[in-house]
Amino acid sequence: MATSCSFSACKLTELQYPQKAANSLQSSFSNRFFPAKSAPLSSGLMKCMPTLTGNRGCSVRCSVLETRNPVSISAGKNFQLEDVIEAQQFNRDILSATFEVAREMENIEKNSLGSQVLKGYLMATLFYEPSTRTRLSFESAMKRLGGEVLTTENAREFSSAAKGETLEDTIRTVEGYSDIIVMRHFESGAAKRAAATAGIPIINAGDGPGQHPTQALLDVYTIEREIGQLDGIKVALVGDLANGRTVRSLAYLLAKYKDVKIYFVSPDVVKMKDDIKDYLTSMGVEWEESSDLLEVASKCDVVYQTRIQRERFAERPNLYEAARGKYIVDRGVLNAMQKHAVVMHPLPRLDEITVDVDADPRAAYFRQAKNGLYIRMALLKLLLIGW
Amino acid sequence: MATSCSFSACKLTELQYPQKAANSLQSSFSNRFFPAKSAPLSSGLMKCMPTLTGNRGCSVRCSVLETRNPVSISAGKNFQLEDVIEAQQFNRDILSATFEVAREMENIEKNSLGSQVLKGYLMATLFYEPSTRTRLSFESAMKRLGGEVLTTENAREFSSAAKGETLEDTIRTVEGYSDIIVMRHFESGAAKRAAATAGIPIINAGDGPGQHPTQALLDVYTIEREIGQLDGIKVALVGDLANGRTVRSLAYLLAKYKDVKIYFVSPDVVKMKDDIKDYLTSMGVEWEESSDLLEVASKCDVVYQTRIQRERFAERPNLYEAARGKYIVDRGVLNAMQKHAVVMHPLPRLDEITVDVDADPRAAYFRQAKNGLYIRMALLKLLLIGW
Amino acid sequence: MATSCSFSACKLTELQYPQKAANSLQSSFSNRFFPAKSAPLSSGLMKCMPTLTGNRGCSVRCSVLETRNPVSISAGKNFQLEDVIEAQQFNRDILSATFEVAREMENIEKNSLGSQVLKGYLMATLFYEPSTRTRLSFESAMKRLGGEVLTTENAREFSSAAKGETLEDTIRTVEGYSDIIVMRHFESGAAKRAAATAGIPIINAGDGPGQHPTQALLDVYTIEREIGQLDGIKVALVGDLANGRTVRSLAYLLAKYKDVKIYFVSPDVVKMKDDIKDYLTSMGVEWEESSDLLEVASKCDVVYQTRIQRERFAERPNLYEAARGKYIVDRGVLNAMQKHAVVMHPLPRLDEITVDVDADPRAAYFRQAKNGLYIRMALLKLLLIGW
Repeated sequence: MATSCSFSACKLTELQYPQKAANSLQSSFSNRFFPAKSAPLSSGLMKCMPTLTGNRGCSVRCSVLETRNPVSISAGKNFQLEDVIEAQQFNRDILSATFEVAREMENIEKNSLGSQVLKGYLMATLFYEPSTRTRLSFESAMKRLGGEVLTTENAREFSSAAKGETLEDTIRTVEGYSDIIVMRHFESGAAKRAAATAGIPIINAGDGPGQHPTQALLDVYTIEREIGQLDGIKVALVGDLANGRTVRSLAYLLAKYKDVKIYFVSPDVVKMKDDIKDYLTSMGVEWEESSDLLEVASKCDVVYQTRIQRERFAERPNLYEAARGKYIVDRGVLNAMQKHAVVMHPLPRLDEITVDVDADPRAAYFRQAKNGLYIRMALLKLLLIGW
Repeated sequence: MATSCSFSACKLTELQYPQKAANSLQSSFSNRFFPAKSAPLSSGLMKCMPTLTGNRGCSVRCSVLETRNPVSISAGKNFQLEDVIEAQQFNRDILSATFEVAREMENIEKNSLGSQVLKGYLMATLFYEPSTRTRLSFESAMKRLGGEVLTTENAREFSSAAKGETLEDTIRTVEGYSDIIVMRHFESGAAKRAAATAGIPIINAGDGPGQHPTQALLDVYTIEREIGQLDGIKVALVGDLANGRTVRSLAYLLAKYKDVKIYFVSPDVVKMKDDIKDYLTSMGVEWEESSDLLEVASKCDVVYQTRIQRERFAERPNLYEAARGKYIVDRGVLNAMQKHAVVMHPLPRLDEITVDVDADPRAAYFRQAKNGLYIRMALLKLLLIGW
Repeated sequence: MATSCSFSACKLTELQYPQKAANSLQSSFSNRFFPAKSAPLSSGLMKCMPTLTGNRGCSVRCSVLETRNPVSISAGKNFQLEDVIEAQQFNRDILSATFEVAREMENIEKNSLGSQVLKGYLMATLFYEPSTRTRLSFESAMKRLGGEVLTTENAREFSSAAKGETLEDTIRTVEGYSDIIVMRHFESGAAKRAAATAGIPIINAGDGPGQHPTQALLDVYTIEREIGQLDGIKVALVGDLANGRTVRSLAYLLAKYKDVKIYFVSPDVVKMKDDIKDYLTSMGVEWEESSDLLEVASKCDVVYQTRIQRERFAERPNLYEAARGKYIVDRGVLNAMQKHAVVMHPLPRLDEITVDVDADPRAAYFRQAKNGLYIRMALLKLLLIGW
């Protein structure tokens, strides 16, 4: 009578497995906790499950459910995506492939009443702090593809101080109920810890002051969609550059493209920090600080406005009021902008973009929000059934 | 290279479009934000979507997905419903048509395990204040028709004082995730503002002291269903007539029918206000105030009881206690009522109807609650795919 | 013109009905409130609905949707389950049948992408207090079987002190929106009251200090699944035995099996109470108290560890600290345990099991949590469409 399963007995090495899936399979098996999971293959969908053979003995059966011709994304490399934790994991090729799928998703969303691509899959939105906008975007993405959703916005209860459960234990429980976890947490690094534990894919929907990679992806996707290219563009980052993780991630990703120039336009109290400036310099990206929004706007392809966050000025309300009113995108800025350029904003906005800008075709921020749906649809498909 | 789409290029004028759809299409296009939407046509379902042709150029493709013979509802007029904002938008013909669909819905709910009429459609319940009863009713309606739901009961977060997003911006974001928005808000007029912004249908599920039109519809539907007619009926409105928007809307809608007589039976402190009395008089509806519930009950087809709301008597607890106990529907009232008459109540109830009334066939209030499901199913179908 | 429906007119006595369904049908009809419901038959699925014939007259139509050969569970008795309220309602035969279905569910969950067994059914999770873990488990179970879910975690609002609705009225409303209600409440006995009112099945997901029967079932199922049998086993119950309803229910259910021996290992302040001890004695179950966890662990098939609940020691923090650290399951305990034995825990855990135990094949607690999914899938299927 077997008391545990050996990995080798399953001959998994014969199968073309993403590394993490193989690792997690092995470790899962060594403690006999192995949720049925679908591993994304470069060439199709494989479903693996442990089968108990007799009392306590077990073996793993894997079968390829659906095979497609392997798609060469770039120079013959296969596309592998197992979790979405931080913007840094996306190189130019992966971004390009993800955007290609996002375009497909746009077609699906607009042309069909209900895709069934993810039928039978279950996504858990494990939110340790509420973020209705992000949650609805992910849940819409899953449902537009025929998948189902388990929702919680009070996940803190799982690990309340009173009860004291670790994040790792919570993940081990929730992965038993679902096929993919979209997680928002108040602590930087939480998503990475979750991914290290889970046998199913994790998507980071924001972890405190840390990362919010799907926002970064949708920003870059929107620029490509609106301007038609990413190489050679000029981008103005405006507003709170010190605290906004959005602009920091965007600057980071733009550095992957050629001949990009970035302008920083911000009140003195919330200027872009040196780490990003140094990084850009090290990557050969030209950047410049300016206090003349009109002049910068006239040169740029993208004016990326952000909100000055009042909560950062708790004890300095005067500074907040000064910073807030300093750089407003209004009709005057629009008039200075080129015909092909666009205004972007991660939303929500206050009055840093005046409402009379909305009607201009170059106001791209609501299209940008909608692109978040397509990016999330693409990631869900890539993580659950692969390319 | 086009930088915006012109409406005329799409030849939409050739298509038989409801006015608002055409308007919203035009305005959406002028700012290039146009969610894929299905416009209810009098004669079928049309799906329109913008298609990008090359970089930044675009055109709209509209196609009729499903054509049916136009149904003449009354005197050849076609049935058009684009949003459900207030009871006043429903005339006798539209009420009659809606009730006909509600009857169909009743058959669907009772006879089939899962209709797929709204398969592929996504409803967002955007609740700025919780109302579990109303929310569950709408979500059940959507799911009974095969549709899917995005839920939020903390929509205030979208537009929290701290962040300050406008309702309009929130609507523009949420309409990107869904096909119809059911909205509850704490401010009167919020639903109308949302409808003016949205390119997809809005249903008002209560906006503060304003309207709650689906409650009004289900009340009238219940009377027709229980009594068999609306012309010539006698209705007693009992309880808190000053603050209850339910009875006010009901009085308003009953005025559309012939030879209706309304009795007001309420404690002095919460009497029906003059605006409704004047309106009824102007419409030729007979009404009368009475303090004798037994006598009124013996004459009426419907005794519509309501809860005295304690929160209206914050600083006058004695008045509350007096008002609350004054008119109770109990077995004595039932005994006075005619055999065919019914007791209604919008729920929840306290003790203004005693529980021993529940077992009587004339206690219609739980059937009334259930009718809310059928009315909401009907409205969802009418707004999403039309008659 | 009929003013109420008589039960006999429907000839329901010709149909093989579970007793409660017949009762509820009759009582529903006497007050003319009769939600469309599917009654689980021993031999198939029957759908009954009232049909209005003319004005106020009505009749019930019942039809068998799907017939299967009756399955003899034990000695020719048919398997009937109408609500799940307390562990006591499960005898050995019903447990055995439920576990057989749970095994089927395990196959469905692992081998198929989305069963459609419960397609068209709608479950309401009516939670008067949040319990994310339990709620997600039930909702995952429903969705894994193709069913749909209405969720509320703030059901108190239905019956808030301000509004004062009774539980019975709430149930009568919610049963109009759904086919089954999973309910969590803060008051002992609430589930039983709900079941007495509802015409659709109720599952108790915990009612205050009362019952949490699905936890008890998954515990017994896990023991059978891990050890291979229930007769003749030795089980150590460790930790807070005074307050934990989990261990109390488990002791109760284990008494149904032969030659079971139970060891109680707990700090003095939270010892097992006499009622359970007396019950075990009366059922002929051997039990023993011990303070030597290592020695007990070496003899047992199952070491069932529980969390010492800090909230029980509000004014005695010293006692809490002492109690909490007293019996820890660590590698030392594992080393003492037999090769085939397992460690269980209802989760969440603090440090009463050290994390280095997790990797051992005998750490069964995450598998135990997953078994909760299978048990809940089984119960949903049994209650909604029967064996």
